[in-house]
Amino acid sequence: MRQHKFTLEEHELPTHYYNVVADMPNKPLPPLHPGTREPIGPEMLGPLFPQALIAQEMTTDRLVDIPEEVRDKYLKYRPTPLFRAHDLEKHLDTPARIYYKYEGVSPSGSHKPNTALAQAYYNKVEGTKKIVTETGAGQWGSALSFACAQFGLECEVFMVKLSYNQKPYRKTLMNTYGASVHASPTPLTEAGQGILAADPNSPGSLGIAISEAVEVAAQDPDAKYALGSVLNHVLLHQTVVGQEAVKQMEKAGEMPDVVIAPFGGGSNFAGLSFPFLGKNLKEGSNIRCIASEPTSCPKLTRGQFRYDFGDTVGMTPLLPMYTLGHNFVPAPIHAGGLRYHGAGVVVSQLLKDELIEARAHSQLECFEAGVTFARCEGILPAPETCHALATAFAEAERCKKEGKDDVILIHLCGHGHFDLGAYETYLRGELQHHELSDADIAASLAQLDTPVPA
Amino acid sequence: MRQHKFTLEEHELPTHYYNVVADMPNKPLPPLHPGTREPIGPEMLGPLFPQALIAQEMTTDRLVDIPEEVRDKYLKYRPTPLFRAHDLEKHLDTPARIYYKYEGVSPSGSHKPNTALAQAYYNKVEGTKKIVTETGAGQWGSALSFACAQFGLECEVFMVKLSYNQKPYRKTLMNTYGASVHASPTPLTEAGQGILAADPNSPGSLGIAISEAVEVAAQDPDAKYALGSVLNHVLLHQTVVGQEAVKQMEKAGEMPDVVIAPFGGGSNFAGLSFPFLGKNLKEGSNIRCIASEPTSCPKLTRGQFRYDFGDTVGMTPLLPMYTLGHNFVPAPIHAGGLRYHGAGVVVSQLLKDELIEARAHSQLECFEAGVTFARCEGILPAPETCHALATAFAEAERCKKEGKDDVILIHLCGHGHFDLGAYETYLRGELQHHELSDADIAASLAQLDTPVPA
Repeated sequence: MRQHKFTLEEHELPTHYYNVVADMPNKPLPPLHPGTREPIGPEMLGPLFPQALIAQEMTTDRLVDIPEEVRDKYLKYRPTPLFRAHDLEKHLDTPARIYYKYEGVSPSGSHKPNTALAQAYYNKVEGTKKIVTETGAGQWGSALSFACAQFGLECEVFMVKLSYNQKPYRKTLMNTYGASVHASPTPLTEAGQGILAADPNSPGSLGIAISEAVEVAAQDPDAKYALGSVLNHVLLHQTVVGQEAVKQMEKAGEMPDVVIAPFGGGSNFAGLSFPFLGKNLKEGSNIRCIASEPTSCPKLTRGQFRYDFGDTVGMTPLLPMYTLGHNFVPAPIHAGGLRYHGAGVVVSQLLKDELIEARAHSQLECFEAGVTFARCEGILPAPETCHALATAFAEAERCKKEGKDDVILIHLCGHGHFDLGAYETYLRGELQHHELSDADIAASLAQLDTPVPA
Repeated sequence: MRQHKFTLEEHELPTHYYNVVADMPNKPLPPLHPGTREPIGPEMLGPLFPQALIAQEMTTDRLVDIPEEVRDKYLKYRPTPLFRAHDLEKHLDTPARIYYKYEGVSPSGSHKPNTALAQAYYNKVEGTKKIVTETGAGQWGSALSFACAQFGLECEVFMVKLSYNQKPYRKTLMNTYGASVHASPTPLTEAGQGILAADPNSPGSLGIAISEAVEVAAQDPDAKYALGSVLNHVLLHQTVVGQEAVKQMEKAGEMPDVVIAPFGGGSNFAGLSFPFLGKNLKEGSNIRCIASEPTSCPKLTRGQFRYDFGDTVGMTPLLPMYTLGHNFVPAPIHAGGLRYHGAGVVVSQLLKDELIEARAHSQLECFEAGVTFARCEGILPAPETCHALATAFAEAERCKKEGKDDVILIHLCGHGHFDLGAYETYLRGELQHHELSDADIAASLAQLDTPVPA
């Protein structure tokens, strides 16, 4: 019998998060105050995050302990399985050997609980009563709702209106875990009121929803804010994925030549790739790490490296990142989790230093790959996940042309059981294509007056 | 660290199906010809099923080989995990130790692929081009669609109209795997035409959908029919679940006092319980096996043991089973997979011989249990699955009252990510209660003129 699944025992669950910053040749530039534009210290983040997470945001330690209480909750679904995609390889007729790490077995169906549980725990310990957040496609919001239920915290979610309407069941899942959910932009916040005044039909965006959540959290002394990607501590928490995958690839007797993950704000990509990238930086390995983004939101492949806000209204510190501009509103693609204007600071620095690669794919190409994957491997992937599949299919084709038997590892970060409305549209042949011109991107970037690092 | 998850390696995947018939003190009575009402032989089933499945339907062998090709496909998701429900135990404040076997990790999100893959394989080997079937909530239809994609077969599904409208995304999932899906009753078959003539607004039922699928399969020489429950060979295939659970409970150093599973036609219940029941029959163990059904479709707790048709129109052989009458149309509850008038032959004989138990629960009680489970354990259960939870909660309460630390094992047979419309209704407080009077049941049974065994 050929082997399909490489599992780990509970005692093989990682005990630490891996912080790639410790091994980066160029450390990330500091965040700047949105008003003074001077570097800021940890105290600026105090109103929004618990101290433990601020410390993790700033740390340059290589390893960060995972608390026992968080590891205990991880065991509800971790370690997650790693699979060899035998039937997909056969279908693609490629000499490449294709593996995927599957995070869809988590209660909310994606990798997001890895950081949600950690963030809920640290908030609980420091006395937070309520966590306020935003969500795009709903993966992050449902993960945080689950995590808050686990630690007895209230949860309030601003969900991008486009996704709220596309995926009503994601909202119900959050409600089932006990969270309250709003369609953003809302009239509940000043940020939302401003957006609605300018465009009453705004479909919303992650940047807008962040503005609203930050505003609500900042005004409530019992509440804190939580972000599902972009920030260093969020990327850090996700590295349990890649650490497990390193062990599982060793059990398979292989090491990947290429590691591929979808890219929204960076946590998904970081989660799988950073422990492999660490092998490049520390041990001289030569593993290509590729981030896959939508052509309709191409900050890595067509954005600019400069300081920008994390939100649309401009309430957050300025972060040095690849960005399309914080006013950029991406086309209404179904991969809602990738509709974000900027890339996390650490990932941006790594791309600038050419230590990682990026590719962009159209929505249509991604769904084609998703349907092929479902028919071959059984698992229906989330639209976000399909981006990594599109890149992997291209790499498998390259291997075929070059006669190379590269080992390809994909981050199959979530299942698509909440995304069947999108698949229905695709199967009907009605999926929309969204062109994005150079002029559109230039116009969005031209609105920025923020510093451009040398 | 307390242990949560008990996993098995690939090499621990069962190599055989376990046939409880071999160990039953009273063997099931033979099926009867629908016209002559004489016992029938295997040749009657030839037009509908491949020979290998007919042989499995009739066999009294204790163990039946699982073909390597089927085991290879099982490895896409099997062995499935078994969990200890620490947080649920704490919430229920019970001395009982609660475990659950989780089949929601399969590609289609339930236990149904266990038989779908086997049935697709045997059909493929014997030259079938297309498999026709019915589905209620869609768990079976999506499992068979997945299995047909795996073995390169066409798949045509008659989906109960009520569920088709309640769960449009299940249809899309089947389409994504390449299957065609109809809302039953349809005007495509004589059976459907008859039902629609009597009631143009018929919500459909599993019995009706079976009539339609059987009619289509019988008329197409390249097609066969497949059933997702009730029949002996289907129950047989599901025993991989319980065989794994026996090994996993041994790893946990425990053996259950009570095994609980939802009950629709019997395959779900049989899958988990038969290998434990086998220990009772062969080794003198004393493990209680409880089947959990809806109060709105209570064939085990309020039905009659007699010969009845498997379908509504009366095309199938007569089977000796607990039934509410083949014309019984259950109330439109959300647990569509349990809306079936009869119980499988083997399970019916076991209940008659008091070797297993049965309980019934209202829809409201089941959803309450489901939400509690989701908040404690993270996994959102399917409405069918919630029935087993309702029974388990009652058993946990009994343990608390009696001061007993019984070990309870639940079949968590599917996730509820396709059932969030139902949860939305529940959370809004709009879930309907359906009373079923003795007179209604008596009226349905009074329509039967079939033999009642001694």
